[in-house]
Amino acid sequence: MNFSKRVLNMQASPIRKLIPYAEKAKKAGKKVLHLNIGQPDIETPKAFFNYIENNKSEVVAYTHSAGLFELREAFSNYYNKHDIPFTPEEIIVTNGGSEAIIFALGAIADPGDEIIVIEPFYANYKGFAEMMNVKLVPVRALPETGYAVPAMEEFEKVVTNKTKGIIFSNPSNPTGAVYSEEELRRIVDFAKKYDLFIISDEVYREFTFDGTKHISTMRFEEYDRTIVVDSISKRYSACGARVGVFATKNKDLYNQVMKMAQSRLCPPMMAQLGTIGLLEMDDSYIDEVYKEYDKRRLAVYEELSKIEGAVFQKPKGAFYVSVKLPIDNSEEFVKWVLTEFSIDNTTVMVAPLTGFYATPNSGEQEIRIAYVLDSEKLKFATYILAEAVKAYNNR
Amino acid sequence: MNFSKRVLNMQASPIRKLIPYAEKAKKAGKKVLHLNIGQPDIETPKAFFNYIENNKSEVVAYTHSAGLFELREAFSNYYNKHDIPFTPEEIIVTNGGSEAIIFALGAIADPGDEIIVIEPFYANYKGFAEMMNVKLVPVRALPETGYAVPAMEEFEKVVTNKTKGIIFSNPSNPTGAVYSEEELRRIVDFAKKYDLFIISDEVYREFTFDGTKHISTMRFEEYDRTIVVDSISKRYSACGARVGVFATKNKDLYNQVMKMAQSRLCPPMMAQLGTIGLLEMDDSYIDEVYKEYDKRRLAVYEELSKIEGAVFQKPKGAFYVSVKLPIDNSEEFVKWVLTEFSIDNTTVMVAPLTGFYATPNSGEQEIRIAYVLDSEKLKFATYILAEAVKAYNNR
Repeated sequence: MNFSKRVLNMQASPIRKLIPYAEKAKKAGKKVLHLNIGQPDIETPKAFFNYIENNKSEVVAYTHSAGLFELREAFSNYYNKHDIPFTPEEIIVTNGGSEAIIFALGAIADPGDEIIVIEPFYANYKGFAEMMNVKLVPVRALPETGYAVPAMEEFEKVVTNKTKGIIFSNPSNPTGAVYSEEELRRIVDFAKKYDLFIISDEVYREFTFDGTKHISTMRFEEYDRTIVVDSISKRYSACGARVGVFATKNKDLYNQVMKMAQSRLCPPMMAQLGTIGLLEMDDSYIDEVYKEYDKRRLAVYEELSKIEGAVFQKPKGAFYVSVKLPIDNSEEFVKWVLTEFSIDNTTVMVAPLTGFYATPNSGEQEIRIAYVLDSEKLKFATYILAEAVKAYNNR
Repeated sequence: MNFSKRVLNMQASPIRKLIPYAEKAKKAGKKVLHLNIGQPDIETPKAFFNYIENNKSEVVAYTHSAGLFELREAFSNYYNKHDIPFTPEEIIVTNGGSEAIIFALGAIADPGDEIIVIEPFYANYKGFAEMMNVKLVPVRALPETGYAVPAMEEFEKVVTNKTKGIIFSNPSNPTGAVYSEEELRRIVDFAKKYDLFIISDEVYREFTFDGTKHISTMRFEEYDRTIVVDSISKRYSACGARVGVFATKNKDLYNQVMKMAQSRLCPPMMAQLGTIGLLEMDDSYIDEVYKEYDKRRLAVYEELSKIEGAVFQKPKGAFYVSVKLPIDNSEEFVKWVLTEFSIDNTTVMVAPLTGFYATPNSGEQEIRIAYVLDSEKLKFATYILAEAVKAYNNR
């Protein structure tokens, strides 16, 4: 049928492709606790809907290609509160963080060019890179170090004259790692040395725990090749809104990306309005959400600690934890749990980490847990997982 | 600063780049009648807002990557009414028609591959093609023929072993042409001969006049390489919603495109809800809108007919008309009108057609008028244009 190589090379969503096994379990009458996908169960603030209701216009017209100015102002205020010095003119509102990453890759890399990525990484980076014909070159973070930024020698080993940038998420999806100022400084110094762009995906900015403070890559503002990718999806439990941000202080880069933004006309207007409502809220909502995730994190951590042979560190951020389990094949394990294992007629679905690696045959002992259920359910789900590990190894 | 070649090759929006001249005119106290952009002034139906209000959920969650099933069902019903046999499983809801075109190009063409396009064409095709590193190869439609589909020899001249598809809009933006069954059959036969995909952009489906009936490329359903691109933007005056459609009966192609759709997660949820409301309306709204555009079309036609030396045919569809004027440089002309010409302190802005061509130095005598103002304003605007042509040539 000669489709393009780029689309044939794309993998099916590693998170979504196991859904048929969960459906099978449900058909067999079992309850499935879903820890596999980063879709929070938390209510979207009413401010989202109220702002739309009170500010809708008679014609749902194109907005500015960079997004409504009022929204960019609201984002700018939000960033300034977080010591990130973006003005409205340095922000482009995008169709979710997804489009911001596509724009970033498109502007800095041509087909065949390379982007260094810290792996394991947000699985969809792969899809975006294939779509834009850019090659992701991984450097490996390890469960034993809590998935800290790898030593710079690892970066030096893979950099070539085709390398155009570095991409990572901080706080990290899927690992829950939060990078220190020192780790970020090393990345920035490396980027400076080779004139690389940095794509810093900071969508979980608010979710850092145990006194860890999130540091934006914009802390190193003097380096003018930094792109911040952002999204309201997780912060405000508004994944379906599709409002993200591409931001940079680099005026030339901004102007280049605006050409892509103009060709697709504008981001969705209703969601842009709703987001103004979200950004104008005080901090009480985010404080509550933060407490809830922290409670869940501790619940998962406590139960995971009971699994003999599990390798992980207490997650410091986002709402994920990646764990190395004493299993032989994480994808087979996840399928097996869904089809063969249950306690009180309940089973659990987690994400095998294989899809979060660019290096083939990696992550075969690792899984990701998204703590998107309340802590009682989470404890039970993690207990089921712990028992499943034993049963899987004795099967 | 080494940005990517693909982004450096992208042109600034040909429609938006002249806006500074319009702003200058406004600063000088002049009124500017905007016929340059396809942003209708018509009200978006209340059904859009009402459906959102009555069906919003507590969590604005990710929807299915192909869009809400209920929405795909509503689209399917709409298509069936138009004798286009798409089922919900053959539809992917996209971020406007823009994303549908990006998906289509991405799935059928690799970097360096070629897509034949009938020119002049919707200017943003160029941006999407550059972004995906695909080469647009033009065949020329002429004002003298009402921009009819060129003779097939023209297509034969440009087809190579890198040609993967043909793209066109029908009804046509920017020309207002509507293709006959015979013209479409020729395109389909040509595609069959060379195994090419067809990207049929049908966003102006409802707007065909003088008894001309729109025929979808799906009339030739037996050819399994057809992609229909659609959008609610113009039909329901909901450009800012960003709801489009990628549809195909080709199951393999659908599955390939779904991988791209999954990586960007989903289209915007609020707009998807609103669109269900739009599609469930009866035909009275669209009938009214149709009558209004027809009235405008006739008003523009009448005034244009008074311009000596203008070459055009009565437009048959969409809400545009492209005209060859007795001028030397359409871009200079548009700038000149904005800065130097007015009647009753009012001037007019149209789009030079240069940006709608892939062939360099083309469209230098042509402009596009979007009839997106009421007919009285339109008549006056077209009168200003007619007088401006004389004054420009006598300057």
